[in-house]
Amino acid sequence: MADIAAAAAASFEGDGERRFTGVAPLQSAGPEDVSFLDNRRYAQLLKDTKAGAIVLAAPFAAQVPPGAVALVTPQPYLGFARIARLLHPLPEPLPGIHPTAVVAPGAVVGPGTEIGPYVVIGAGARIGAGCIIHAHVTIGPAVEIGDGCRLHPHVSVSHAILGQGVVLHPGARIGQEGFGFAPTPDGRFETMPQLGRVLLGDFVEVGANSCVDRGSQGDTVLGPGTRLDNLVQIGHNVRTGRGCVVVGQAGISGSTTLEDFVTIAAQAGLTGHLRIGTQARVGAQSGVMNDVPAKTDVMGSPSMPVREYWRSIARLRKLGAGRDTEGKAG
Amino acid sequence: MADIAAAAAASFEGDGERRFTGVAPLQSAGPEDVSFLDNRRYAQLLKDTKAGAIVLAAPFAAQVPPGAVALVTPQPYLGFARIARLLHPLPEPLPGIHPTAVVAPGAVVGPGTEIGPYVVIGAGARIGAGCIIHAHVTIGPAVEIGDGCRLHPHVSVSHAILGQGVVLHPGARIGQEGFGFAPTPDGRFETMPQLGRVLLGDFVEVGANSCVDRGSQGDTVLGPGTRLDNLVQIGHNVRTGRGCVVVGQAGISGSTTLEDFVTIAAQAGLTGHLRIGTQARVGAQSGVMNDVPAKTDVMGSPSMPVREYWRSIARLRKLGAGRDTEGKAG
Amino acid sequence: MADIAAAAAASFEGDGERRFTGVAPLQSAGPEDVSFLDNRRYAQLLKDTKAGAIVLAAPFAAQVPPGAVALVTPQPYLGFARIARLLHPLPEPLPGIHPTAVVAPGAVVGPGTEIGPYVVIGAGARIGAGCIIHAHVTIGPAVEIGDGCRLHPHVSVSHAILGQGVVLHPGARIGQEGFGFAPTPDGRFETMPQLGRVLLGDFVEVGANSCVDRGSQGDTVLGPGTRLDNLVQIGHNVRTGRGCVVVGQAGISGSTTLEDFVTIAAQAGLTGHLRIGTQARVGAQSGVMNDVPAKTDVMGSPSMPVREYWRSIARLRKLGAGRDTEGKAG
Repeated sequence: MADIAAAAAASFEGDGERRFTGVAPLQSAGPEDVSFLDNRRYAQLLKDTKAGAIVLAAPFAAQVPPGAVALVTPQPYLGFARIARLLHPLPEPLPGIHPTAVVAPGAVVGPGTEIGPYVVIGAGARIGAGCIIHAHVTIGPAVEIGDGCRLHPHVSVSHAILGQGVVLHPGARIGQEGFGFAPTPDGRFETMPQLGRVLLGDFVEVGANSCVDRGSQGDTVLGPGTRLDNLVQIGHNVRTGRGCVVVGQAGISGSTTLEDFVTIAAQAGLTGHLRIGTQARVGAQSGVMNDVPAKTDVMGSPSMPVREYWRSIARLRKLGAGRDTEGKAG
Repeated sequence: MADIAAAAAASFEGDGERRFTGVAPLQSAGPEDVSFLDNRRYAQLLKDTKAGAIVLAAPFAAQVPPGAVALVTPQPYLGFARIARLLHPLPEPLPGIHPTAVVAPGAVVGPGTEIGPYVVIGAGARIGAGCIIHAHVTIGPAVEIGDGCRLHPHVSVSHAILGQGVVLHPGARIGQEGFGFAPTPDGRFETMPQLGRVLLGDFVEVGANSCVDRGSQGDTVLGPGTRLDNLVQIGHNVRTGRGCVVVGQAGISGSTTLEDFVTIAAQAGLTGHLRIGTQARVGAQSGVMNDVPAKTDVMGSPSMPVREYWRSIARLRKLGAGRDTEGKAG
Repeated sequence: MADIAAAAAASFEGDGERRFTGVAPLQSAGPEDVSFLDNRRYAQLLKDTKAGAIVLAAPFAAQVPPGAVALVTPQPYLGFARIARLLHPLPEPLPGIHPTAVVAPGAVVGPGTEIGPYVVIGAGARIGAGCIIHAHVTIGPAVEIGDGCRLHPHVSVSHAILGQGVVLHPGARIGQEGFGFAPTPDGRFETMPQLGRVLLGDFVEVGANSCVDRGSQGDTVLGPGTRLDNLVQIGHNVRTGRGCVVVGQAGISGSTTLEDFVTIAAQAGLTGHLRIGTQARVGAQSGVMNDVPAKTDVMGSPSMPVREYWRSIARLRKLGAGRDTEGKAG
C-alpha cells in the first residue's frame, strides 16, 4: 500500500502493509485491486465498488465505501497511471536478433535490444540500446533510432532520426515521400523530389496506421513528448514543439507549424503554412485555415474562436427549429 | 436456374434447367450471367441488358426484356448476394502451416487451418479450425481466434479474443494500446497502461487499415455481426451491440457504447462516454457529442435530429444566396 | 548551370559552367545549392538567402541578391522539381529476387526488377521490367504489374492490374473486398461477394495506408496520372479519369465517378453513385451529396458552389458575433 501510494504521490489512512495485486475499473474491481475516479460522471460508482483502494481527488474521498482506502491526490489520473505501471511494468526487451531478421551491412544494433522475426534493417542504420523492434518492422538505410524505443509490428521507418523512448504503434508509417508534384502543361504530374527527413524527438509516440511524411527540402519534426493517435496524417515539413497532442484521424497539411503543447482534437484538419500558437486547442472536426494565437481555443469549419462558434451554433439551431426571434423589433 | 432461384428465395417462370455460369452488372452481363436491380436509379438499364436472368423486386419484373428471366424477390440485393456466393464460393483453406511461419511454443493451430508465409504467432495463442491466416499476419501471445476466421495480409492482432467467422481485412490493427496518458506538472506525458483486451464477436468484420484499440482496464467489444469499413478508428473501451455498421473513416472515441444495429456513416465522429441507442443512425460527417436515443437519425456537427438538420441547412442556404425573407414583416 | 537551367526550361544570365551540387530551401541554401520561390508568402526570404541560384518567376527576379543567379521561368515549381530530380535521381532497381521472397509457381518477374526481402508473390502474378518491390509486399495471384512500378514496404495488392510507372506508398491496400453486405430478415449480414478488380492506370500513385477496394461486379478504376495522398479511401466501383488528385484522408464512396483532372481536397467525403465533372474542385472537408458539374468549385457539408458557401459562412459569422444587421429595416 505504501509503495503504491508513494507511486501516486497520494495520501492515505490505513495499513501501509496492505497488499494490492492489480488495477481494475470501479465497477469490476475486487478487494485486491486499486481503482480510480477522475471523471465526476462516474462518481456514482463509488458507493457500490468493491475495490480495495481508490485513487481520487479530495472532494470525493468521503464517498469511498467502508473497507476501501482512499488514495487522495489532486491528480488521480496521473496517480493511477503510476500505480498501474508499478503493478504492470512494461515488458523488457529480450536482447538478441531473431535469425530471420535481415540486417544489412554496416547496420548497428545497440546492446540489450530485441530484434524480432522478419525485421528488415537497411544499410548503415543505427538502432540504440534497449529497444524492442517487433515482427515485420522495416527500417530504411541510414535511419537512426535512439535508446529505449519500441516499434510495434508492421511499422515502416525511412529517412528518419528518432530520439530516445520513441514508440511507434502497429502500421505507423514514418519517412515516406509526401504529396508533392507539379502539373505540366500537357496534363501530367511530375513529382517534386522529397529530400528531407523526419525527426521524432524523445518520447514521441505515433499511433497505429498514422503517417508522418518526410520533409521536401527541410525536415518534418515532431517535438519531444508529442503524441499522435491512430490514423493521423502529418504532411511534409510540419513542425511541432514539445508535448503536442494530435487525436485520431486528424490531419495537418504541409509546412504548418505547431508551437508547444498544442492539442488538435479528433478528425480536425489544418491547411498548410499555418502557425498554431502555444497551448492552442483545435476542436474536434475543426477546419483550420488561419493561424491560431497561443492559448486560443477554436472550433468549427472554417474554425473560429470557440465562444463565437457556440453562439453561431445556437443561432443555427434556432433557425432549424423554425424560430427566429433574435434581433426582431419588439 | 432452379438452384439459383432457390438460393435467392426468388420466384421465376421458365426453364428450371437453364444454366448460368456467372454474375455481372446489367450493363455488361451476357445470356449466361445473372444480374440484379435494387436501385431504381439504374432501372433504365433493364431494357438493354443482355443478362440471362435478373434478380429484382416485383414492380420492375415487367421491364425485364424478352429472353431474360425475372427472379422476383422482395429482397433483390440479398437474393443476388446469395446467387453470387453460390456461383463464386469463398476459397477453402489449404490446411497446413507454411514453413516460413514462426509459431511460438504453446501456440495451437486448429485442424483444417491454413497459415501462410511469414505469419508470426505468439506464445500460447490459439487459432481455431478452418481459418485462413494470410501472409505476414502477426498474432500476439495468448490471442484466441475462433473457427472459420479469415485474417488478410499484414493484419496485426494482440490482446484479443475473436469469435467464429471473423474477417479482418488487410492492415487491420486489433488490440494495440489506445491513446491514454496523463500530463505531469513538468510538462511531460506519462502513459496510462492499457491492460484490457479486444473482444470481437462471431462474424465481426474489420476493414482494411482500420484500428480497434484494446481496453484500458476493461475490454473493447464489438458485438456479433458488427462490421467496420476501411480506415475506421475504434477507441479503447468502446462497446457495440450486434449488427452495428461503421462506414469508412468514421471514428468512435473511447468508452462510447453503441447498442444493437446502430449505423455510423462515413467520416462521422463520436466523442467519448456516449450511449447510442438501438437502431440509431448517425449521418455522414456528423459530429456527435451527446447520447442519441434509439431509432433516432442524426446529422450535422454538432449533430441534431435529421429533420432539424435539414431545416437549418435550408435556412443557411437562403442566407448564402442573399435572400433572407423568412420572418420579415410583409 | 546550363544543364540545370535547361532542365527547368529557365532563362538565366551568367556563367553557364557554374556548378551546383544540391537543392535546399531559401532559408538554408548555400552557394552551391539551387533554391526556388513559388509562393509569394516567402518572397521576403529572398533578400537574405545564400542560395547560388533561385528558380522563380519573372516578377521576382529583381529581388534576387547579388551573387545569386535568377533562373527565370513562368513555372518555378515545375522547374525546381526537374532540377531536384536531375541532382537527386530516383534509385535504380537492383535486379534480382531476394532469397527470402516467396514466388509462387507460374509467377513471372520481368527483367531488371528488384524483389526485396519477404515479398510474397501469388500464383500466376506477372511483374514487369524495372520495378522495385520493397520488403514485405504481398502480391496476390494473377495480379499484373506494369514496367517501372515501385511498391513500397508493407503494400498489399490483390485482384488488380497496374499500368506502368505506378507507385504505391507504404501500407497502401489495393484490391481488397469492399464494404458490401445485405441485411437478412433475422438481423444478420450476408456478404455481397466482391468479384471485380482494381485497375490503376499508368503513373497512378497511391499514398501511405490508403485503400482502394476492388469492384463488386465491375472494376474500380483510377485513370492515368491520378494521385492519392495518404489515408484516402476509395470505395468499390469508383472510377476516375486522368490526372485526378485526392488529398489526405478524403473518401469517395462506391460507384462515384470522377471525370478528368478533378481535385478532391483533404478530408472531403463524397457519397456514392455521383458524377463529378472534369476539372471540378471539391474543397477540404466538403460533404458532397450531389453531382458536381465540370469546372465547378464546391465547399461545405453539404457542399454548395464556393461563392454561396463563403456567403453563408460570412452570415453565420455575423450571427455568432451577435450582430444580425443584414436585412433589417432601417
